[in-house]
Amino acid sequence: MSEWVKVAVDAMGGDNAPVETVKGAVEAVNESSKVKVYLVGVKDVLEKELAGHTYPREQIEVVHASEIIETAEPPVMAIRKKKDSSLVRALNLVKDGTCDAYVSAGSTGATLVGGQVIVGRIKGVERPPLAPLIPTATGCALLIDCGANVDARPSHLVQFAKMGSVYMEHVMGVKNPKVGIVNIGAEEEKGNALVKETFPLLKNCPDINFIGSVEARDIPAGAADVIVCEAFVGNVILKTYEGVGLTLIAKVKEGMMTSLRSKIGALLVKPALKTTLKAFDLEQYGGAPMLGLKGLVVKTHGSSRANEIKNSILQCITFTEQKISDKIREKIATEEVVSEPKD
Amino acid sequence: MSEWVKVAVDAMGGDNAPVETVKGAVEAVNESSKVKVYLVGVKDVLEKELAGHTYPREQIEVVHASEIIETAEPPVMAIRKKKDSSLVRALNLVKDGTCDAYVSAGSTGATLVGGQVIVGRIKGVERPPLAPLIPTATGCALLIDCGANVDARPSHLVQFAKMGSVYMEHVMGVKNPKVGIVNIGAEEEKGNALVKETFPLLKNCPDINFIGSVEARDIPAGAADVIVCEAFVGNVILKTYEGVGLTLIAKVKEGMMTSLRSKIGALLVKPALKTTLKAFDLEQYGGAPMLGLKGLVVKTHGSSRANEIKNSILQCITFTEQKISDKIREKIATEEVVSEPKD
Repeated sequence: MSEWVKVAVDAMGGDNAPVETVKGAVEAVNESSKVKVYLVGVKDVLEKELAGHTYPREQIEVVHASEIIETAEPPVMAIRKKKDSSLVRALNLVKDGTCDAYVSAGSTGATLVGGQVIVGRIKGVERPPLAPLIPTATGCALLIDCGANVDARPSHLVQFAKMGSVYMEHVMGVKNPKVGIVNIGAEEEKGNALVKETFPLLKNCPDINFIGSVEARDIPAGAADVIVCEAFVGNVILKTYEGVGLTLIAKVKEGMMTSLRSKIGALLVKPALKTTLKAFDLEQYGGAPMLGLKGLVVKTHGSSRANEIKNSILQCITFTEQKISDKIREKIATEEVVSEPKD
Repeated sequence: MSEWVKVAVDAMGGDNAPVETVKGAVEAVNESSKVKVYLVGVKDVLEKELAGHTYPREQIEVVHASEIIETAEPPVMAIRKKKDSSLVRALNLVKDGTCDAYVSAGSTGATLVGGQVIVGRIKGVERPPLAPLIPTATGCALLIDCGANVDARPSHLVQFAKMGSVYMEHVMGVKNPKVGIVNIGAEEEKGNALVKETFPLLKNCPDINFIGSVEARDIPAGAADVIVCEAFVGNVILKTYEGVGLTLIAKVKEGMMTSLRSKIGALLVKPALKTTLKAFDLEQYGGAPMLGLKGLVVKTHGSSRANEIKNSILQCITFTEQKISDKIREKIATEEVVSEPKD
């Protein structure tokens, strides 16, 4: 059945592989008849794991790979040397057209490097950014770039804005998504050299809805849908989000356990609190897509459990059906024509 | 009485001036007999405000200044043109030796510029950083730099590490404070160009306790006492801290109000929760000191109320008694000698 969206899953990658990766794949195919999962990893191990599950057989295929790339390995070396690793084999399934998308909870570095050198960039894309969705008070925003490519140039940030807009509009269904650049003040003249150079380029960019500078304080409140920044700053925002969230929730729990009175209160409050806090959970959105590649590459948390793996697999359906890579190609191609001399 | 620590307060600066600035000054002198406050601003207005309060008269003196610098004014122009503003007059009281310290809730930009051009840098200090204390699960950490000087060089960051160590050790009483550099991974080879260049310099710095890279995720948990970064990144961390905190606490409140059951629970939980969350409140520490100047310059939140103004004034006592500026001068002077050729 050729209409399946085909997803290669690095079944050996991540802290909880292969138990949770296999379980996530099973849950995904049980939830959607639109997807076929290629589980890549040590065949015997994966088949043994699968034996304990019930699922439509035609929707999961095991692809053997004997090696595993560890998180601590230097990415470039690992990609080059471990040709028979689950990570490299899975990426190759996207490269050779067998699969539309790739999902891994394994090494971020190896996925970022492999995405570029194995799957390859769309023509014209200077840098493929890693763009996770982060929760906000009003929904979610795309934080672009949180990848490994630090010290970006203004032209990279302009492409991030365009690619992020395509993603938010066509995958998340946000009409005319608001694009903001992370800055340390709302005024146009503020910022570091990179932001000052990028600001007018974004302002003059006809095919995005640029709203100007966004202060980090306003991101959680939902100030913009596409948050443009270079990778170092993006990483700092993402990690501060996670860290403050974890510490604050621990403080709330600690506060609730200080007296008998508060403990009784906690029991009453818990179910309602769980629901609202879930909406602010970074892991609910599945993995972060790496945009601007010839196929879809999704990186999920190293600590992913079945639910996040499942969500990451399912998000590949919309991405593929909406032909996001084609839309990005068109948007970047337009740019190339415009920037060429006219005569 | 010459043993007073003398603090010039920009009484007209901030969203709630002069009501809260005057109230904060009154509370400070009522709490400590060690401090004398010079309230700088429109004399009639300030005297009218003071008339409603009871306090030791000899501990507050009004100094007239007819102008006010607004937050939106371009800092350099404002400092140059408004010589009779409360902000400039207050800084001049530090410059001419009348006062030891300056506190303002007014324009951050004008305070940063005025601190440098009026109070002046300690000899050898390349850049005076703004260094707020941020709450962590285990206490607090100094985030240095969050100022207006973006695009820093490695040598600036090394000085930040030294000045921050002096502050945490002698003002906050942290023995041998742990210094970390904000990075996007724990490994030495990770980071952007600035971090990669700075890392070995910090590693080889004999008079700080350098613990290496700190990921933003680990800051709220208390990974280091002195968090070194350039101002753009520092500002992003500080603002994300504030934004995520505000949004999460709003979500917790929202969750508690969703059902009758949770509302009853909320009533029982509230007092205990208030106590633990207070420990994670960014405003409890008073203002952020600007380090490396000939006198102490403290910038508090624009939205400061009396309590924060009071805390900012009181923190000037320890700073002055501990002779922090002298200690910084010594530390930076040592550096100069070491870096000179020996023969």
